[in-house]
Amino acid sequence: MTRTQGRELADARSSNKVDVVVIGAGLAGLTAARELVAAGKTVAVLEARDRVGGRLLNHDLGDGQVTEIGGQFVGPTQDHILALAQEVGVATYKATVPGDSVYVHNGAAKRFSGSTPPDLLALPDAAIAMARISQIVKTLPPDAPWKAPRASELDGMTYETWLRKLEVTGGGVDLMNIFLNSAYGSEARDASALFSLWYVSTFGDETHPGTVERGTGTEGGAQESRFVGGSQLITIRMAEELDGRVYLSAPVRRISQDATGCTVVSDAGDWRAEQVIVAVPPVLASRIVWDPLLPPQQDQLFQRLPFGTLMKCEAVYDKPFWRSEGLSGMGLLRDGSPIRSMFDNTPPDGGPGVLMGFLGGKEWRAWAHRPARERRGAVLRCFAKVVGPQAFDTTDYIEQDWTAEQWTQGGPTSIAAPGVLTDLGEWLGRPFGRVHWAGAETSPYWNGFMDGAVRSGRRAAAELLDRG
Amino acid sequence: MTRTQGRELADARSSNKVDVVVIGAGLAGLTAARELVAAGKTVAVLEARDRVGGRLLNHDLGDGQVTEIGGQFVGPTQDHILALAQEVGVATYKATVPGDSVYVHNGAAKRFSGSTPPDLLALPDAAIAMARISQIVKTLPPDAPWKAPRASELDGMTYETWLRKLEVTGGGVDLMNIFLNSAYGSEARDASALFSLWYVSTFGDETHPGTVERGTGTEGGAQESRFVGGSQLITIRMAEELDGRVYLSAPVRRISQDATGCTVVSDAGDWRAEQVIVAVPPVLASRIVWDPLLPPQQDQLFQRLPFGTLMKCEAVYDKPFWRSEGLSGMGLLRDGSPIRSMFDNTPPDGGPGVLMGFLGGKEWRAWAHRPARERRGAVLRCFAKVVGPQAFDTTDYIEQDWTAEQWTQGGPTSIAAPGVLTDLGEWLGRPFGRVHWAGAETSPYWNGFMDGAVRSGRRAAAELLDRG
Repeated sequence: MTRTQGRELADARSSNKVDVVVIGAGLAGLTAARELVAAGKTVAVLEARDRVGGRLLNHDLGDGQVTEIGGQFVGPTQDHILALAQEVGVATYKATVPGDSVYVHNGAAKRFSGSTPPDLLALPDAAIAMARISQIVKTLPPDAPWKAPRASELDGMTYETWLRKLEVTGGGVDLMNIFLNSAYGSEARDASALFSLWYVSTFGDETHPGTVERGTGTEGGAQESRFVGGSQLITIRMAEELDGRVYLSAPVRRISQDATGCTVVSDAGDWRAEQVIVAVPPVLASRIVWDPLLPPQQDQLFQRLPFGTLMKCEAVYDKPFWRSEGLSGMGLLRDGSPIRSMFDNTPPDGGPGVLMGFLGGKEWRAWAHRPARERRGAVLRCFAKVVGPQAFDTTDYIEQDWTAEQWTQGGPTSIAAPGVLTDLGEWLGRPFGRVHWAGAETSPYWNGFMDGAVRSGRRAAAELLDRG
Repeated sequence: MTRTQGRELADARSSNKVDVVVIGAGLAGLTAARELVAAGKTVAVLEARDRVGGRLLNHDLGDGQVTEIGGQFVGPTQDHILALAQEVGVATYKATVPGDSVYVHNGAAKRFSGSTPPDLLALPDAAIAMARISQIVKTLPPDAPWKAPRASELDGMTYETWLRKLEVTGGGVDLMNIFLNSAYGSEARDASALFSLWYVSTFGDETHPGTVERGTGTEGGAQESRFVGGSQLITIRMAEELDGRVYLSAPVRRISQDATGCTVVSDAGDWRAEQVIVAVPPVLASRIVWDPLLPPQQDQLFQRLPFGTLMKCEAVYDKPFWRSEGLSGMGLLRDGSPIRSMFDNTPPDGGPGVLMGFLGGKEWRAWAHRPARERRGAVLRCFAKVVGPQAFDTTDYIEQDWTAEQWTQGGPTSIAAPGVLTDLGEWLGRPFGRVHWAGAETSPYWNGFMDGAVRSGRRAAAELLDRG
């Protein structure tokens, strides 16, 4: 029996029939499934992992406490994820911790309050960049940045080039990279200027145009709040509501379309459906066997939307000792440290203490393959620069390398190099026969964020229902 | 029976055992297999297509004549492909045709001889660019461009940005894009400056440093000669020599490694081998199911090596009518035409006449999904600008869209955006356990060319034999 014959047998014995198969039980897929069930459709959600949540993942700290090692922050204008959380009974709390933040540069750690790091040389550059970003972002349509007046010019250069053309010096670029490092696991040189400016334009909603401050900020920004019980709880609750419709450990290997429907081949059996929603990141979608093949333009686009590289490193302590010293636990490190930004990631009732640092972009590329012990030491030395030597007195240390996860292959989102959006961007969410696309990468608002994922699931479900 | 159980059954009944499985029967894979067989190894070559040759493909013109619709040109310092061709009895002939070439710009078609198009405004810019390229290419080690003195700076910008920083105007960039369009199916803005300059540094060998002229030239350059019987014939001859060791229609779906060897799962059965050579392009390698997973750095690199987009469009005529009018059939079009460069692709004994045009980069992206008839008309109008209205009197018209080929997914080679080579380049050919990598993309000389493919197959075989 050849593999092909095996598949034909599998097709013949397939008895799983639904109106819609949704692939991926992250926020986008579960949201789509929920909408479809509400509209009376029969639905099966096929999830490759043995858990739901996709890029959301809680880590159990014991005693009923969790911390997150995937997406976690929410803020103003992210109304879709906030409303969904409320619907499934997950509350929010303020993520911000009173106290000073710390800026590490030139061998010194300086306390500061507010959101502006005390870097007298780099700040004027950063201010110029911010002003220019604000201007240009207004010209970018969030749903079609390739139609912007200067799209071609902006998509001809990297974001680093664009910044340097403003006479922004190395310091200003460094500050920008501190943000990009966690925001998309990349450096300013890895992404197109058009993509990066468009990304900022998505930090808002239909009535609030995107701003840098809303994307990077804590109070009033995208890092303002967290979810009680951890962000993954929202997906767990949705899966419970979907009551038996979510199939775990069911990686999808092949999607066939014919005149009467789709056949979805997974490790947990085959499904037949009238339509399919693919709610996995572009790079994973491209690794499914497609029959017929994806349109070449869509395949080319997916070839050009690699994931960023991001690891979350978290240290656990008896208590958040830095708080009593007037520190917020937030640190920005511009001294070549592997960790460039870090936050207090302590659960809402104050214990145990957790510090979380992002190891992303080129630092991931330098550190991810080194021995775990060596990396742990380097990360704790970064934490110590911000909160003092007690940083070494951990009760636990957790690393979550999203790039090593088979069913994500990177983090936190997919980014586009120059030329991609202008030439191929319009293929991003374009339905392919009976296949519709969801996922945070397809959203014109909060692209790459939890809110974008929820929006995309709703949009895909509506699009599918609209087609009948 | 689930898919997983099916696979276990397949493993159990597997009786195909060899020393080495080679994946991909293109030039790289077949060369590797040939070397291994010569060294006494048992080998199976698994090829996804029902033919050998990979990106080489002959098109039958009837009466024993062929033209190529894949890779076809060879030139000086490409000694590895030239020696191989000689070994398997495939002769070369001069590809260049006497007569004037034609440059189309500003609504006029101007004849010119030699390699320099008559563009008085753009040429000074092009000359500045060429001089600067020559200087900088000397500083790039072909086997490790990320170690170049200015690697970080050059990998922070697109090639378009680098050209514009030389004060090269739109005309100079257009001329460069005419070349890049066929050379890597992309625009200057799609690739990193470091990648593009390194690519030039690979236009040579161990004793002849790469030059632009050798890469872009006809006489004395990489477009100097063709193979009698078509380039694919070399791979057909090699497959014949390998006598029963090449398995067609055997796409590989999964590669597992354990303490004692590798299991390779294909649609044509499973193989067990001590070592594996993967001789397929990076994007296809990344779509195989890996167990264990690829190292995250290698997966990330493969996520960042998309194919260019390239289609070859060929028109067939009773005879090469343009020759009698003193035309070489070569045309360079800088007027926004879908075809930006074209050549006489007539078989060696002079008939039938064939014109071949490249539809690549952003033109592919604009044209590939339009109706075939509309595209044919547009292409023939380009040909007519160069050889006159007889271009419409075709006896046949052929399109080969490499981007729509399931087992290539683009053409002619893979390119790197900014940031990729410096952060991840060293993972390109790094063996992964029992797996070795071949393919034109892994070669430090003639990267992306036939010669690079042959070199890579030899290198991979030697590396494997060296390990024992």
